[in-house]
Amino acid sequence: VIDDVALAAADRTVSRAVRRTPLLPVHGLDRPLWLKAENLQLTGSFKIRGAFNRLSALSAPERAAGVVAHSSGNHAQAVAYAATLLGIQATIVMPETATAFKIQRTREFGGQVVTAPFAEYRGHAEELARSSGRVLVPPFDDDLVIAGQSTVGTEILAALEHEGVEPASATVLAPIGGGGLLAGVATAVKRRSPATRVVGVEPELAGDAQESLRRGRRVEWKPTDTIRTIADGLRTTCLGARTWEHIAAYVDDIVTVSESAILDAVGFLVAQAHLVAEPSGAVTTAGYLSRLELLPGDGPVVAIVSGANTDIESLVGLLGRDGRR
Amino acid sequence: VIDDVALAAADRTVSRAVRRTPLLPVHGLDRPLWLKAENLQLTGSFKIRGAFNRLSALSAPERAAGVVAHSSGNHAQAVAYAATLLGIQATIVMPETATAFKIQRTREFGGQVVTAPFAEYRGHAEELARSSGRVLVPPFDDDLVIAGQSTVGTEILAALEHEGVEPASATVLAPIGGGGLLAGVATAVKRRSPATRVVGVEPELAGDAQESLRRGRRVEWKPTDTIRTIADGLRTTCLGARTWEHIAAYVDDIVTVSESAILDAVGFLVAQAHLVAEPSGAVTTAGYLSRLELLPGDGPVVAIVSGANTDIESLVGLLGRDGRR
Repeated sequence: VIDDVALAAADRTVSRAVRRTPLLPVHGLDRPLWLKAENLQLTGSFKIRGAFNRLSALSAPERAAGVVAHSSGNHAQAVAYAATLLGIQATIVMPETATAFKIQRTREFGGQVVTAPFAEYRGHAEELARSSGRVLVPPFDDDLVIAGQSTVGTEILAALEHEGVEPASATVLAPIGGGGLLAGVATAVKRRSPATRVVGVEPELAGDAQESLRRGRRVEWKPTDTIRTIADGLRTTCLGARTWEHIAAYVDDIVTVSESAILDAVGFLVAQAHLVAEPSGAVTTAGYLSRLELLPGDGPVVAIVSGANTDIESLVGLLGRDGRR
Repeated sequence: VIDDVALAAADRTVSRAVRRTPLLPVHGLDRPLWLKAENLQLTGSFKIRGAFNRLSALSAPERAAGVVAHSSGNHAQAVAYAATLLGIQATIVMPETATAFKIQRTREFGGQVVTAPFAEYRGHAEELARSSGRVLVPPFDDDLVIAGQSTVGTEILAALEHEGVEPASATVLAPIGGGGLLAGVATAVKRRSPATRVVGVEPELAGDAQESLRRGRRVEWKPTDTIRTIADGLRTTCLGARTWEHIAAYVDDIVTVSESAILDAVGFLVAQAHLVAEPSGAVTTAGYLSRLELLPGDGPVVAIVSGANTDIESLVGLLGRDGRR
């Protein structure tokens, strides 16, 4: 697993480029809730941390050649912008099913976007990288990416101390797609503050990580199942080999949340915290709101609000569904 | 006007209780835009700063007696919560027309809410304060309230320096209702950094402050005019005597924005900055988006996003109107 040297190196590298996002308290709850607002991060999600850490480690020839990535979501914008910051050309292969909003955003962040049919876009990116000798920037299953995401955990510990909250009393919630954020955060938190609980949260409809932790081995779900969750950033069907190793070593538990709990959480974040989150970014808040009795410890809960990239029409649709219940 | 001693005292007092809200950059604009996110402040608006500074100055007998305030908006929650923090009982007189959401929030923050007909609620609060010998906490026209709001300006200067932006190159935009925030921010900014421009922004439909600055004297508008703006926190018909004195001394200019520009700005903040703002909190962003050519200077613009207190149905309504255009 990642060691303290790699964690410290990531802290130094990543803090040069990304924002130290605020840790915001939510008022009026019996058990204190703090929100780590990665939805306010550059590019609208935590993904910039891992992408920047990975790209910073490229050799001079690798930088000169440019990089390739495939993504239907936040990884696209993150790689595009991290590459722009480092003066590297990035080609992002996105599925034709990606929204015009996400494609436009990726271009705005400096990425050269290529689209391909959904069934082929990953393979297309791999082929493009291979044929052109460019590095393919992995979305999660890579120690440098995991170390980049770990900086969220480091910032949470520092912010809790700054607020006068004992980190050992806290329970930290991270969402799980491929597991990069949870793996990084758990590693950073547990190596510095072993008593702090770290819990993953995923949709019931994409509960492969919870099943994996229960069985003690990586379990794969069918894409026809995971596609059903509204949390489109968390539809990954299986943890990565590298993320799994860190999650198995450091994570205390994984809880799942219902689709209606996710919608409620999007509305709660708007009304109570004045933050816009995409459904994938709201699952940790859904974990607090709907699974509090399952969370270990009885101290403050830190929910990582991991991303915000949604267009207004989608948000209005989500809030309308929430508000009419 | 407020002197440097009063400004420094407010910085010390207010920083003990309120959040240092983030200064967030918006990506992809030709002229840099930074958002001072007071919508993420405790109670959802900057108003807690002035209320806390005013209540902190009460004598022991005044504290023991409790306080009274009248408000249809963010001042209600701010006084309620500032009083709770200081162990003071607060009675808030709200108009019967206030939304259930705002009344409930005020109660959640510890205020005892009394309602009265819209035409009478201010008078009712004044009578209640007089008859019971309690202090009436003014919403804006008070030097301690203005000094409390000035801490937003102090934080902006510090944050710009932290980000490597020369404060002298910046133009700071503050919304105008009764003028407390603009008066405080202008005083703090101009006394520390005279070259920084400070500009007020108000709805065209409540343009009394712009007209006052043009004429060189306080001008009052009719409530039947100002009621028409969607920015319900900025419907005040006239600047206060104290706020006017500071605004006349320190503010560079005042611009007005249209109703459609305000709606556009609410949507822009959601989509581009992932922040929920009420219309009154979005007017400065509207100033940037629709009046850029009127703003002095050509450097970075700082827009104070002053508040966020809106319920989900209202936000969906606002975004829907924006999205359908």
